[in-house]
Amino acid sequence: MSDPHDLSDSAFLRAVRGEPVSHTPVWFMRQAGRSLPEYLAVREGTNMLESCMNAELVTEITLQPVRRYGVDAAIFFSDIVLPLKAVGVDLDIKPGVGPVVAQPVRTLADVAAIPDLTPEHVPFITEAVRSLVGELAGMNGGTPLIGFAGAPFTVASYLVEGGPSKEHAKTKALMFGAPEVWDALMRKIAGISATFLEVQAAAGASAVQLFDSWAGALTPGDYERYVMPHSAAVLARVGALGAPRIHFGVGTTNLLSLMGTAGADVVGVDWRTPLGSAIQLVGDRAVQGNLDPTLVFAPTGVMTARAAEIIEAGRAAKGHVFNLGHGVIPSTDPDQLARLTEFVQSYSLG
Amino acid sequence: MSDPHDLSDSAFLRAVRGEPVSHTPVWFMRQAGRSLPEYLAVREGTNMLESCMNAELVTEITLQPVRRYGVDAAIFFSDIVLPLKAVGVDLDIKPGVGPVVAQPVRTLADVAAIPDLTPEHVPFITEAVRSLVGELAGMNGGTPLIGFAGAPFTVASYLVEGGPSKEHAKTKALMFGAPEVWDALMRKIAGISATFLEVQAAAGASAVQLFDSWAGALTPGDYERYVMPHSAAVLARVGALGAPRIHFGVGTTNLLSLMGTAGADVVGVDWRTPLGSAIQLVGDRAVQGNLDPTLVFAPTGVMTARAAEIIEAGRAAKGHVFNLGHGVIPSTDPDQLARLTEFVQSYSLG
Repeated sequence: MSDPHDLSDSAFLRAVRGEPVSHTPVWFMRQAGRSLPEYLAVREGTNMLESCMNAELVTEITLQPVRRYGVDAAIFFSDIVLPLKAVGVDLDIKPGVGPVVAQPVRTLADVAAIPDLTPEHVPFITEAVRSLVGELAGMNGGTPLIGFAGAPFTVASYLVEGGPSKEHAKTKALMFGAPEVWDALMRKIAGISATFLEVQAAAGASAVQLFDSWAGALTPGDYERYVMPHSAAVLARVGALGAPRIHFGVGTTNLLSLMGTAGADVVGVDWRTPLGSAIQLVGDRAVQGNLDPTLVFAPTGVMTARAAEIIEAGRAAKGHVFNLGHGVIPSTDPDQLARLTEFVQSYSLG
Repeated sequence: MSDPHDLSDSAFLRAVRGEPVSHTPVWFMRQAGRSLPEYLAVREGTNMLESCMNAELVTEITLQPVRRYGVDAAIFFSDIVLPLKAVGVDLDIKPGVGPVVAQPVRTLADVAAIPDLTPEHVPFITEAVRSLVGELAGMNGGTPLIGFAGAPFTVASYLVEGGPSKEHAKTKALMFGAPEVWDALMRKIAGISATFLEVQAAAGASAVQLFDSWAGALTPGDYERYVMPHSAAVLARVGALGAPRIHFGVGTTNLLSLMGTAGADVVGVDWRTPLGSAIQLVGDRAVQGNLDPTLVFAPTGVMTARAAEIIEAGRAAKGHVFNLGHGVIPSTDPDQLARLTEFVQSYSLG
C-alpha cells in the first residue's frame, strides 16, 4: 500500500524536478485571498495577522482554492511580515495600506533588538501545516503544499521604510551608506526566513517559495552584492531539508540568472519576460509562470490562447509550473480562474 | 556673429546626434519640481494644472534647476494629463494621489467625446516655450529646451482607470477585450500628444521626450501590437519637424529595442538595465540614463563612483546623455544633485 502522504509523483513535484508530466501543473500566487467570496466570509471580523496566527483559519483559507479550482498545489496562507510579528516586532497590517512598522530599523542596536525566530514562536504554523498536509493528501489524488516566506530584501524594505514604499529610498540609503548595519539586518532576516521555512518543511510542506517581491528594484550589481548572499543562505538552509525551492520576484528580467544561482530549483518569472527568454536565462532549472494577471479580465478565448502559448514555451524548460506572472488581482472573477485551471490541466502535452 | 538661439553645438544636442562631446551632458528627469525649495515657494497657492497653464510660472519653474545646477538641458515643466485638460476632459491632479478623471473612458462614444488638440487650446504652451527659449539662450552658454509629452499607453491608463493604477487591469481589459475601442482611444491620444509636442517644437524646443511611464507593465508582444504603432505615430509627426526624439519608460528591459525602433533618436533607460546591456539592445541610437535615483541618498563618494561607471559604460553608445534612471525623488537633497551635476560635467572623457 502506498503512503498517502507521498506526493512525489504529483504533477507539481515531477515538474519541479524536471521529470515528464501528463499535464503542466498549475497554481496561482495569491490563489487564497481577496478574490474569493469564501475567503472574505471566513476573514470577516478577524484581522490579517490574527488570521495568519490561527491554525484553523490558515488551514481553511489555504484549502479554499484547492477545493474550488483543483489546482495542482496549495500555497500556505501567511504574510511576509508574519515571522517578524511572531518574534515581537511591533507592526500591523493596515487594510488598504499594507504592513506598518512602529519603529523603523536604522541602526545596529535596532537590528540587535529583533529576536531570532525559533519554532516555539510559531506553534500555530506547525499545527496548520500538519493539518493541511493531512487534508491535502485526500484532495484531487493528493495535493502538495508549498511553504511560504518573504526574502530578506523585501522584508528589510518594510522594516527600514516603516511601511510599503515605491522607491525603497531609505532601504537603499542604508544599503549604500551603512553596509555594516545592512549586513547585520539581512543576516537577521535571513535567519528568520530560513527558520520559518524550515518549520513548514519539517511539518510536511512539499516545497517552499521564497518571495522577493521588491528585488526587481535593484540593479544586478547591487542584487548580487547586497542581497543575493542572504537569499542564498535562506535557500541553502531549507534545501538541506530536501524541500524543492521556488524563488520569485517581480520585474526581475535582469536578475533571473542570479536568482537561479542563489540556489533555486525553480525560478518564478513575472509576465514581463517572455518565458522563452527566461528559460535561457535560468539555465538548467525549472521555471514557474507567467501569464499576465490582467489576462483573466480578457475574453476567455484570448486568455486561454495566451495560456497555450506559455505552455508551449514551457516545453523548452527543464520543468514548467504554470502560474500567473504575479499574484491574483483581488477583483479577479474566480470563475475565470476556474476556466484557466481547467484549460491548463486539460491542455495536451502529447 | 553667431545666432544665440543656435544650440546645435551644445553638448546635449551633439550627444543626441552621436557626435563627440567634451563632457557627457547631464539633466535629470523631474529636475524641476518638489525637490526644490524655490519650486515649493512659487507653487504655493497654485494647483498643479493651473501652474502648467500659466506661462510665467512654467517659465520660472523650468528655469529653476538650470540656474541651480547648470544642467545641460532644461525639461519643459508640464504634466502628462495637461493636454487632456486643455481640450476639456474633466480631470484634476489630486495632491498625494495623482491625476483623477471624472468620467473614465470605456466606449467608442467616450473616445469620440474627447476633442482633438489644436494649438489654439494651448496658447500658454507656445508662450512659455518662446519665453524659455529666449532666457535659456543666455544661460550657461546656451541651454537647449526639451519638450515633453506623455505617450499614448500611459495617458490611456489614466483615462481608462480614472486615476493612477498599479496593475492597469481595466486598461488592459479594454486592450484585450475591445480592440476597436482601444485603437480609437490610442489614435485619439496619439494625435493629442503629437500636436502637443509639435507646438513645443514649433515654438523653439530643441528636442522632445515622449514619456511612456507605464509601458513596462506590458509584455513585448502586447507592446508591439497594441502600443508601439501609436507611439511611433507620435514620434514620426514630431520627427518631421526635425526635433530629436527621446523615448523613455520605466521597467522596459524587454522593450528597449522596440522603443528604439518606434522612432527614437535617444532611448531612455531606467536603472534596472545595466547601461552596457541597454546599448546593445537599442542598436545604432544614443542612450539616456541611468543612475538609480536612490543613489543620491548614498554617501557622495558612492554616488559619484556609480556615476563614473555609467559614464564609462556610455562610451560604447552612439551617444550618451547622463540622467537618473527615473525622476528625481521629492526627498532628494538638491545639494547632492548639484554635486552629481558637477561630477558628470567635469569627468574627463579624454
